Amino acid sequence: MKDDNCIFCKLANGVIPTNSIYEDDDFNVILDAGPATKGHALIIPKEHYKNIYELPEDLTAKAFVLAKKLAIKMTDRLGADGFNIVQNNNEVAGQSVFHFHIHLIPRYEGDGQNILWDPKKPTDEEQKAVRDSLI
Amino acid sequence: MKDDNCIFCKLANGVIPTNSIYEDDDFNVILDAGPATKGHALIIPKEHYKNIYELPEDLTAKAFVLAKKLAIKMTDRLGADGFNIVQNNNEVAGQSVFHFHIHLIPRYEGDGQNILWDPKKPTDEEQKAVRDSLI
Repeated sequence: MKDDNCIFCKLANGVIPTNSIYEDDDFNVILDAGPATKGHALIIPKEHYKNIYELPEDLTAKAFVLAKKLAIKMTDRLGADGFNIVQNNNEVAGQSVFHFHIHLIPRYEGDGQNILWDPKKPTDEEQKAVRDSLI
Repeated sequence: MKDDNCIFCKLANGVIPTNSIYEDDDFNVILDAGPATKGHALIIPKEHYKNIYELPEDLTAKAFVLAKKLAIKMTDRLGADGFNIVQNNNEVAGQSVFHFHIHLIPRYEGDGQNILWDPKKPTDEEQKAVRDSLI
């Protein structure tokens, strides 16, 4: 299903022109218009799913296997030194378009990006309580 | 294959005790000792693969389908507001242990983390040149 008000539905299905680097029946992969680095691309399903919570398992598997294949190709073609695969869900996590997508971010020595977090130091008791809530 | 000098081989295979929240034949999922947020966990294959470049396709599919399932469960159990799935390859991309892993990061309003990047503004010509190198 498509959502007529969704910009990524339009980009993935060719309604709006893009710099596409790959396309198959399920996905379009386009260059991000505000890239972190040279080659930063987005894997976008052609059907509308808001986030990883909604994406079916078969498309989840296909999407990330595609991410692996493109990581290899992009690293090789662009001469990258490493690679981030980032997938954000909901506004609090940095998602700004609410149509599932995977960020493919080639990394280069000295590229000036820092896609990390500030590590916390919970106590053993706090960690065990979290674990117990998840098993 | 395991690597005797790899800390994640030891953690994934129970040689060193962990706060494990899930285990099957292929993976162990443990709480990160320096979490970004409450519940930050790592999906670690039991076999040694350095990064996404080396991880076989079948395990790539299984690992990210597991990430989806755990995103749903962790968001529910922990009362999270969103979720980041982050997978880093090579030191330049923030990888610090060279055994493939996926970061599962529940996000909460006001958690103080900012796992993003500074967007650049390449010209149309620069983007088309990148696209041409990738197709």
